[in-house]
Amino acid sequence: MLLQINRESSVTLFDQMVSQIREMIEEGLLEEGYQMPSTRQLSASLGVNRSTVVKVYEELWALGYFESTEGSYTRVRRRKVSVETSEGVQPLRKVGEGLFENHQFVDFEEIDRYAQLMTDPQPGVIDFYHLVPDPRLIDHKLVASCFREVLADPALNVFGYNQPRGLPALRQVIRKHMKLHSIHSSDDNILITNGSQNSLQLIFQTFARRGDVIAVESPTYAMLFPLIRFYGLEVVELESTSSGFDVEAFQRVVVSRKVKFVYVIPTFHNPTGATMSQASREELLSLCERHRIVLIEDSIEEEMKYFGMVHLPVKSMDRHDHVIYLGSFSKVLAPGLRTGWMIAPADCIRQITAVKMMTDLTSNTLSQALIYRFCRLGYYELHLRRMMRIFRKRMKTALKALRKWMPATCVTWQEPLGGFILWLEIGLKPPEQVEQWFQQHGVRITDGSIFYYTPQPGFRIRISISKTNEQEIEEGIKRIGEAIEQLRCQQVGGEVSGC
Amino acid sequence: MLLQINRESSVTLFDQMVSQIREMIEEGLLEEGYQMPSTRQLSASLGVNRSTVVKVYEELWALGYFESTEGSYTRVRRRKVSVETSEGVQPLRKVGEGLFENHQFVDFEEIDRYAQLMTDPQPGVIDFYHLVPDPRLIDHKLVASCFREVLADPALNVFGYNQPRGLPALRQVIRKHMKLHSIHSSDDNILITNGSQNSLQLIFQTFARRGDVIAVESPTYAMLFPLIRFYGLEVVELESTSSGFDVEAFQRVVVSRKVKFVYVIPTFHNPTGATMSQASREELLSLCERHRIVLIEDSIEEEMKYFGMVHLPVKSMDRHDHVIYLGSFSKVLAPGLRTGWMIAPADCIRQITAVKMMTDLTSNTLSQALIYRFCRLGYYELHLRRMMRIFRKRMKTALKALRKWMPATCVTWQEPLGGFILWLEIGLKPPEQVEQWFQQHGVRITDGSIFYYTPQPGFRIRISISKTNEQEIEEGIKRIGEAIEQLRCQQVGGEVSGC
Repeated sequence: MLLQINRESSVTLFDQMVSQIREMIEEGLLEEGYQMPSTRQLSASLGVNRSTVVKVYEELWALGYFESTEGSYTRVRRRKVSVETSEGVQPLRKVGEGLFENHQFVDFEEIDRYAQLMTDPQPGVIDFYHLVPDPRLIDHKLVASCFREVLADPALNVFGYNQPRGLPALRQVIRKHMKLHSIHSSDDNILITNGSQNSLQLIFQTFARRGDVIAVESPTYAMLFPLIRFYGLEVVELESTSSGFDVEAFQRVVVSRKVKFVYVIPTFHNPTGATMSQASREELLSLCERHRIVLIEDSIEEEMKYFGMVHLPVKSMDRHDHVIYLGSFSKVLAPGLRTGWMIAPADCIRQITAVKMMTDLTSNTLSQALIYRFCRLGYYELHLRRMMRIFRKRMKTALKALRKWMPATCVTWQEPLGGFILWLEIGLKPPEQVEQWFQQHGVRITDGSIFYYTPQPGFRIRISISKTNEQEIEEGIKRIGEAIEQLRCQQVGGEVSGC
Repeated sequence: MLLQINRESSVTLFDQMVSQIREMIEEGLLEEGYQMPSTRQLSASLGVNRSTVVKVYEELWALGYFESTEGSYTRVRRRKVSVETSEGVQPLRKVGEGLFENHQFVDFEEIDRYAQLMTDPQPGVIDFYHLVPDPRLIDHKLVASCFREVLADPALNVFGYNQPRGLPALRQVIRKHMKLHSIHSSDDNILITNGSQNSLQLIFQTFARRGDVIAVESPTYAMLFPLIRFYGLEVVELESTSSGFDVEAFQRVVVSRKVKFVYVIPTFHNPTGATMSQASREELLSLCERHRIVLIEDSIEEEMKYFGMVHLPVKSMDRHDHVIYLGSFSKVLAPGLRTGWMIAPADCIRQITAVKMMTDLTSNTLSQALIYRFCRLGYYELHLRRMMRIFRKRMKTALKALRKWMPATCVTWQEPLGGFILWLEIGLKPPEQVEQWFQQHGVRITDGSIFYYTPQPGFRIRISISKTNEQEIEEGIKRIGEAIEQLRCQQVGGEVSGC
C-alpha cells in the first residue's frame, strides 16, 4: 500500500493515514473486499508506531470503511450511505429542503430582534433598553457563600433531578414570601418554572385551544404576542388608561363575547408603569368570577414599590380560584437563574405540572437550591430592601431629569409608583428607525410600537432604568431630551424659535 | 370606636386592630361611607402608638376596606369581591370546577410515578432505579473553583439572560467536543436546551402535526410516550433486536406508510443496552434519506464506552441533513444542571429556536457558564475519563455478579458495550407489583413494562448501575437473584428440587 507519509507536516501521522486511506477507498483505488495488510505489516513498511496504525484501523472501522471478517482480517467495505449512489433515491435537492417544515406561525424577525436584545449596547451608549436588574447590585460574596453551602448539603442533591413542581425547600420559601403580599397558599398551589415566560407558555400549552379569546391591555408585554400567534388565540385589546387596565371596557367586552383568559400586569405595568387601583382590581376579579374567566396576573416587578401605599395582588382576594399569579426572580434578582413560579388552584397546578414534566422533567436544581439558600438566610429580603432603597432614588432622579430635560411641549409621561419603567408619549412624528435614532444620540431605548399587538399610530418609547445608576440616568435622559429636541426642530423647521 | 385591645395577647396590636376593624366592616357594624377617626384620634383614644395606627389604616386601605376621600378623610368602603353577594352570579360550585380544563391527553398516573422517581429509596435499599450519574463522582472542588471564576468573569454575564440558542462560549465548546465523535458542525447547527427531554419536546412542538407517524423501538425511553400522546402522534413500534433497532422491519414499514420521524438510541440503548452496528446505522440513514424521514438520534450515554471499538453517531454520516442529534450533560455529569443540546440542520435549528424562545426565552445562564468553564479547563475530559474507568470496572462487576447470582434457568441478559443499563428477561410470571417485590428484597429496580408503549406480556426489569459502587452492585444483584429465586420457587412449587 502506497501511503505518502510526511513527517515534517503539521498534520499528525494519524490524520494523514486516515485521510489517505479514505480517499483511496472513495476513489475506488482500494476496492470492496480488498484485504488490508495487518497492522504489524503496515507499521513495519511505513516505519510508523504500531499503536498509531491500530488507531487508524479502528477509526476507519468506525467510519465504516473497514470491516472485520473471520480470521480477523481487515477488509475494505463500501459505505452504504450515499444518496447519490443509492438506487431509487430522489434527485438531490437543496439540503433539508422541505424536510423541516413547521405548521405554526413563527415570526423569525421577532427572534432575531430578541437575539439582538441579548447583545450589549456599544460602549458609551447608555442602556435604557434591557429590563434586567443591575448586575452590579448582586452581592457576589453572598452568592458564593450560598453556593458553597448548597454544594455541601447532600439533602439538596444539587446535581440531581428535583421534583416536577420544583425543589420543595424553595416552594416553601416562596409560599412564605407570598404571605407578605397576602397570598396564602398551600403546597399544592405552587409550581416552579423557568421564569414568567415559561409560566405563560405552560398555561397556554395546557389550557388554550385555537380560537380561544384572550383579553390583554394595549400596550402590554411584547413576548406574549408570539405565544398568542402560536396557540392561535383571538385577541381583544383594551387600551390602557392612566390607571392601568380598563375595567369598564372589559365589562363591555365580556357581556358580548366569551373570553377565556385575561392577562394583566396590575402593578407597575410593563411598559406603561401604571398601577391599578384597589377598586379596579376587585371589579376585574368580580367580572372574571361572574363570567368564568381565567385571570393571569403577571406581577414581575411587584416587589419594587417606592411611593404610595401598597396594592395587594388580585390573587390575594381570589377566594373562588380564578387567578393564576405569576412571580419571578428575574426582575429583582437575576434572569440568568431562570426561576419563576406560579400560584394557582390545585387542579390547575396539577395539570400544568404534567405538561411541565413532559417539557423538561424538572426545573434547574442548582438555581433553585441557590435561590433557596439565598432566601433562607435572609439575603433575599436584604437584597430587596437594598434594591428598593437604591431604585427609589434612581426613579426620583429619573423623574427629576425628565422634568428638566424633556421639551415640555411635546413629551408626556406618568410617574410610576414603582418598578423600573418610564413610558414617554412624544407628540412628534417618529423617525423611521426609532431605536437607531436614539442610539445615534448615545442612548438605547425600546421603541414603544413593539408593545402593541395591533400596530398603533403615535410615537412612544420605553425607558428601563433597571441597570443604570443615577449618573447614567441623568445623562441618558439628557441625551433623550436632546434627541427629541433635534427631531422637533427638524419637524417644525424654522417656524418655532429656539431651534 | 370600640376596639378590644389586649396587651397580654400573643397577637400583635397591629393584627388585633386590623382583624377587629375588618370584622366590624364585614358584619356591617361599620357601614360604607362611615368616616373613620383620624389616626391621631384613634391613637390617643386607644393609647396605641400612632405609627402602629397608621400602619393599620394602610393595611386596611390596601385590603380594600378603606378609601381616602377629599380632605383626606378615611372612609369605610365595601369590598366588591364577593361572589356570594354580587348580583347575576352563578351559584357557587366546587371551587374552580371546570374552569381549568385541558384538552390534551395527560396521564396523571405518569406524573405521580415520575414524582415518585424523585424520591430517594428507603435506607438500606440499593438503588438500581435512578438513571443519574453517581453524585459522589463529581469533584466539588473543581466545580466550586469554576463557580468562582464564572462569577468573576463579567463577559459571561452569569446573572443575565443569554442568547436564545445558548451561551456562545458553551456552544463552541460542545461543537469542539462533538468533533471527537466525528460530528462536524457550524455554529448555526447547534441549540442548547434544558436537557434531552426538552430537546424532544421542542422538536415535536415545532414540527409535529396530529396524526404524524413516528417509528420507535420497543422497548424505548419511557418519557417519550407522554409526548407522543400529547402531540397526537401515531406510533409504529419495532421490536428491539439483540443488535438494537431492527432496520429490516423498519424497511418493511417505510415502503407502506408515510413515516415522519424515527426515534432511535443507537448506542447503549435505554433500556436494552444494545448497540447498533455500523452497517445498520448506514442502512437506517439511507432509508431516512430515501423516504424523507427525520431521524432523531438520542445519544445520551454515548460517552460511556467500555468495551469494543467505537461506533460513530449516525449524525456523523448525515451529509444530507436528515438527522437531529441529541446530546446531554445529564447522564455523565449532572441532570440538575438541566443542560443538553441538539445538532441539526440550520433551518431546523432556526425554527426550533423560535419555539424555544417563546418557551423560556433562554436556557439557564448559570448552568451553561459553569459547564463552559468546566469543559474549557479540561475538567470535563478528565471527568469523562474517570467515569469511564470507574464504570468499566462497575459494569464488569455487575456482569460477573449476574453470572454468579442469577438463576441460570430463567434469567437472560445481553452484555452491553457501555452505558449504565442492564436489561434482564425473566422467564417467570411477574409478581403483581414488580417494583415492590424487589423493594421488599432490599433493591429498587425499574419494572420493564413501563418502556413499552403498547403493553407487552413478559417479565423484564431494568437495572441502572449509574449511582451504585461495586459493593452495592454486588450486593444488589445478589438480592435480585434471591428475589427471583424465591419467585421461581413459589411458581414451580415443590416440583423442582433446590427450592
